[in-house]
Amino acid sequence: MENRWISADKGWEEVAAGVWRLRVGNPSGRTPSSIVQPLHKTEALERMGSGSLPFQLSEIELRTDQLRTVITLPLQRDERLYGLGLQFMRMNHRGRTRYLRVNSDPKQDTGETHAPVPWYVSSLGYGIYVDTSRIATIYCGSAVRSDCLYGEAKDRNSDPDWKATPVSDQVEMVIPDQGAELYVFAGPTILDAVRRYNLYHGGGVLPPRWGLGFWHRVPKSYSADEVLKEAMEFRERGVPCDVIGLEPGWHSRSYPVTYEWHEGRFPDPAGFVDEMEKNGFRVNLWEHPYVSPDAGIYEPLKALSGSHTVWHGLVPDYTLPEARQIYSDQHRREHVDKGVSGYKLDECDGSELTRNSWIFPEHAEFPSGYDGEQMRQIYGLALQKMTADLFRAAGRRTYGLVRASNGCASSMPYVLYSDLYDHRSFVRALCNSGFSGLLWTPEVRKAENAEDWVRRMQVVCLSPLAMLNAWADGTKPWSFPEAEPVVTKYIRLRMRLIPYLYSAFARYHEEGVPPIRPMALEEAFAARNARGESKLDSTDFAYGASAESELDDQYMLGDSMLVAPLFAGERSRQVYLPVGVWYDFDTGIRHEGGRYIEASPGLDTIPVYVRDGSIIPMMPELPHVPRQGEQVAIELHHYGTASGKFRLFDDDGESFAYEQGEYRWREAVLRVLEEGRYETSVSPAEQGWSSAYSGFTWVCHHLGTK
Amino acid sequence: MENRWISADKGWEEVAAGVWRLRVGNPSGRTPSSIVQPLHKTEALERMGSGSLPFQLSEIELRTDQLRTVITLPLQRDERLYGLGLQFMRMNHRGRTRYLRVNSDPKQDTGETHAPVPWYVSSLGYGIYVDTSRIATIYCGSAVRSDCLYGEAKDRNSDPDWKATPVSDQVEMVIPDQGAELYVFAGPTILDAVRRYNLYHGGGVLPPRWGLGFWHRVPKSYSADEVLKEAMEFRERGVPCDVIGLEPGWHSRSYPVTYEWHEGRFPDPAGFVDEMEKNGFRVNLWEHPYVSPDAGIYEPLKALSGSHTVWHGLVPDYTLPEARQIYSDQHRREHVDKGVSGYKLDECDGSELTRNSWIFPEHAEFPSGYDGEQMRQIYGLALQKMTADLFRAAGRRTYGLVRASNGCASSMPYVLYSDLYDHRSFVRALCNSGFSGLLWTPEVRKAENAEDWVRRMQVVCLSPLAMLNAWADGTKPWSFPEAEPVVTKYIRLRMRLIPYLYSAFARYHEEGVPPIRPMALEEAFAARNARGESKLDSTDFAYGASAESELDDQYMLGDSMLVAPLFAGERSRQVYLPVGVWYDFDTGIRHEGGRYIEASPGLDTIPVYVRDGSIIPMMPELPHVPRQGEQVAIELHHYGTASGKFRLFDDDGESFAYEQGEYRWREAVLRVLEEGRYETSVSPAEQGWSSAYSGFTWVCHHLGTK
Repeated sequence: MENRWISADKGWEEVAAGVWRLRVGNPSGRTPSSIVQPLHKTEALERMGSGSLPFQLSEIELRTDQLRTVITLPLQRDERLYGLGLQFMRMNHRGRTRYLRVNSDPKQDTGETHAPVPWYVSSLGYGIYVDTSRIATIYCGSAVRSDCLYGEAKDRNSDPDWKATPVSDQVEMVIPDQGAELYVFAGPTILDAVRRYNLYHGGGVLPPRWGLGFWHRVPKSYSADEVLKEAMEFRERGVPCDVIGLEPGWHSRSYPVTYEWHEGRFPDPAGFVDEMEKNGFRVNLWEHPYVSPDAGIYEPLKALSGSHTVWHGLVPDYTLPEARQIYSDQHRREHVDKGVSGYKLDECDGSELTRNSWIFPEHAEFPSGYDGEQMRQIYGLALQKMTADLFRAAGRRTYGLVRASNGCASSMPYVLYSDLYDHRSFVRALCNSGFSGLLWTPEVRKAENAEDWVRRMQVVCLSPLAMLNAWADGTKPWSFPEAEPVVTKYIRLRMRLIPYLYSAFARYHEEGVPPIRPMALEEAFAARNARGESKLDSTDFAYGASAESELDDQYMLGDSMLVAPLFAGERSRQVYLPVGVWYDFDTGIRHEGGRYIEASPGLDTIPVYVRDGSIIPMMPELPHVPRQGEQVAIELHHYGTASGKFRLFDDDGESFAYEQGEYRWREAVLRVLEEGRYETSVSPAEQGWSSAYSGFTWVCHHLGTK
Repeated sequence: MENRWISADKGWEEVAAGVWRLRVGNPSGRTPSSIVQPLHKTEALERMGSGSLPFQLSEIELRTDQLRTVITLPLQRDERLYGLGLQFMRMNHRGRTRYLRVNSDPKQDTGETHAPVPWYVSSLGYGIYVDTSRIATIYCGSAVRSDCLYGEAKDRNSDPDWKATPVSDQVEMVIPDQGAELYVFAGPTILDAVRRYNLYHGGGVLPPRWGLGFWHRVPKSYSADEVLKEAMEFRERGVPCDVIGLEPGWHSRSYPVTYEWHEGRFPDPAGFVDEMEKNGFRVNLWEHPYVSPDAGIYEPLKALSGSHTVWHGLVPDYTLPEARQIYSDQHRREHVDKGVSGYKLDECDGSELTRNSWIFPEHAEFPSGYDGEQMRQIYGLALQKMTADLFRAAGRRTYGLVRASNGCASSMPYVLYSDLYDHRSFVRALCNSGFSGLLWTPEVRKAENAEDWVRRMQVVCLSPLAMLNAWADGTKPWSFPEAEPVVTKYIRLRMRLIPYLYSAFARYHEEGVPPIRPMALEEAFAARNARGESKLDSTDFAYGASAESELDDQYMLGDSMLVAPLFAGERSRQVYLPVGVWYDFDTGIRHEGGRYIEASPGLDTIPVYVRDGSIIPMMPELPHVPRQGEQVAIELHHYGTASGKFRLFDDDGESFAYEQGEYRWREAVLRVLEEGRYETSVSPAEQGWSSAYSGFTWVCHHLGTK
């Protein structure tokens, strides 16, 4: 029974510092890497050293038969496994089987999501990635071989320790392909493994600075005049806003789409975008990949598309350079050259779990040789790469939204979003995104009531993309009058935090440290949270359960801020503060960490804590982010009684000049001499450096004061 | 891009009357057919003739590449597709993608279920079956090729007819294997196609007569004395009961299991079973397939088992004769020879959709060469076949419960059940079971209140297996005192209906007509139900929907009775009566069919309607079904004003002698001469025939009377 398997020889190759690769069989080469073609940040990896692994590479087995490739990896008894992409249902996947299909309806805890990634990091400080465009199934210790090292049979009737899923000593990965390419990323810490994954795939994205401002999407079928009017209301009300998104209806045809402006609603697209730009607004365009027969690019794309259609629209094969050229020429001419700032790439994920399925099937054929399964897994990634390249060619950074992604995506200027709308799942996804080189916005659309509205707006303002998506409901920041003061307070805070956030992204780019991080990536986070153990319910569900709370409702924003959202209906919550001293961002109250505290602010406040000694650079509540070349004054806010420093990123904020070294790190240092006496400095830029900052003021927040 | 595909030549073979087969590539041969090895009822098929198809066989395409086989079939614009196994979520699968994995947690409408079957019947009167142990994905008109005959692109923003899933002109089936074997079953009617499917696979099962009595399962860990005491309470209370089921705890070890009696609780198994038998009770034993290290058969089975364990129990490879021998020898000695009547084969389906997964993985290896995917798909079937053979060898019919099945299962003496517990889904599954050669019991366990309890008990008493499953809750028919009179009324009705039900099963066996049938299989059912059209909800679900009510809450029980359950909370419901005249079974009120009527009986009644002219044979409310050789008197109940006849099956009710011709059809005929005057007859059995019936009495129910 074994002889049909072909095993990999043990030819592990160290492809970068602390990154090893092994191939087995004949992998198709149709992979996320082949789509993104990331520029490995080998120097940054070199600076990290080779790291270490808690096992020998030789313990990993790869083998393939004609239908599938199986990878077996060792697992220690108490190891926890995180990552696997944009997961909504849980943090630690130990004991679960994950079916990593791209899917827009991840309503059951199967592993399916908009952005599944066959990549996990272990609590023991290493990471595993399979570069594949097939749907991997990962048995995260959910399958127990007969020679398993741990455990033994128990009697369920008499033994309270009986578990439906016994502890396994292996991860098993199954790829339905005739080969695979496996990568191992060293630690020593779990954050190091994540950093190596991000750096190997090009480092994290550095968005344009305006991308970190506030975004608003107008209702579908709005005309140019209606968009302008709605945009100007932000200015009149003094609510900061940088990006306005257009929704279905700006095209001449929607579902499928033409990519051409609707002549009635947008008679002068360039003039419209110019007018928006003059008022400090960037324009973002919604689209999806399915090409209408009425589109000018339909005929040229027809022979370069798949065997199946979606909504009777073509499914172009954008793995082909000719197809990319046709799309890009049209988009450059009609959008990019007219000043459009980016896209919202919708519905590249596919659905068959709800009543209305809409996707090409797994066996669809594409001219490149990709099949439907592969194309669906990488389609979002291909669209990200193609549009990112379009803006790169124009010398302008973009930042946009996408509904599907996969591995190797760290460097892509896109933030994921979803039709799901459960606030807790949204926050859990925010936590999880940091494990897998993904960004996620818990976008706000509607709300059940003002409280829900406020709680959602607070979180989205402390996320990678602060957006109100009013396409269907027409909500505005002022839709709930009683909530408006709190909502605008957080939109303004978002604006003030941009230097802090932008620097966090620069660190993502340069060092691979995610700007949003789950607590498990924090060095200071050692204590385990063991709340909650569910009971056997023999009738409704018969297999028992051990639920492990995994801090899925609080996260780090940059290096200093810990965000612990409250949800509608809650008056208080438990927050776990890592070891150290923390200050309440709003009240200044001091907390000892390494424990849970109770947070019970009113509706006007989302609990945020800053580390002792933190410095948070802030800018004024401008109506929009300064344009390239404009300077802004910075306030450096210091919290607590410890000395601290902050590295502030300084570049033009919009171009790719930073890739040629056109950036500076400005180090702001505060040294506490004695209580109430400080020594402060900001490293100067050299003569001739065109800084984004016009000056620095220090603001100190003492213990117990604000 | 096409040349990697190998297409089937068009060598269709008519393997039986109206049954055609085509092979492509190298199918593995590891199929449901190879497990069940059905005796095709070729003579019965011959009697049906070759039938007809609404398309040419040459329109069907089969092709395979190295990873998957694709089958393409034509589809007319308004065709509806039914079947696909024990589906809980819908009747008509047109427009849906079905992923036919065996799974114990079918909580989303994916196609996964305990008993998925790659078999569908069309409203145009033909059926399609793929004999495979791989997980087939069937695109039931959910994928639209670029050359689709129907429809064109629409603009969702402006066109109210826009649909998320456009109408497709093809079914596409994908089998992840290097070949496949396809069967086409002719009509001309949809029922004919179902009958051919059942007949080709051995005809429907004929259960022992006692199997159609009332079943009760005692709580887990009951001792022999407790079981006897609980059983005798049925006798004391005058509640009929034929089968008592033992649950976890009768084994010496459970989860994994030993198959050996617990010495403390069952010190004398043979004596216990004898004592039960003396009182008219059969004993049914719960088990699952995962073998405890403490079992005597563990060591001999070890080398004949899979690479992975479940709950640290072996997963034996019962496709191997040696493994079947070990299991069967032990079961014969310990159970069958001691008088046990059958099994409840639990947990052969597997779970990974809930928090607690427990199943061997898809890549598990088995000594026979089956992999985990294949073994999981056929495991329930293999257990059914192995245990059925065990009882066949003993010359006694069995009837039991199983949690997993697949194709070719019509002749298996097993009824499916599930941990799901939504009453509407249970009833929908009852309707659907009739399309796919499956039996299903909507077992009752607990209830939210007396009303829910009564409504569930009413339905289960009019199902293929009338069971109260009290393993976890300890409920009895008298648990809700206020409901006891109604519940026992239906348990007694069940007993009275046994001659009727048994004859329906005999027809299932001989003609392939399912004893429980969805309305779509009724000849008289022509009118379409077009109630309900859901609206686009742009925010919560963005893809629109067209819901089609499919009469998923009423069904035919045998030829004459239409059952239309009420659910807890309902005071009335709509019932669709097919064309013709119908009588309310309880009130005798006459209804014209071909339309909806309103039913609003009280809680003491489940709406049941009988056709005009129906004859329903009934027996007395005995405490248990007559034993082999015992005779019973029959009342022939005639309903309405039309003449009618009934074919009553007459055999020993327990052995396989009927397969050797040891049965008779007794034709009961009532001819209406004029109002109130009848001529009746029952065909006599010949001299020396040992009939199960001691005599016949006619009871006539006139229009408007009872």
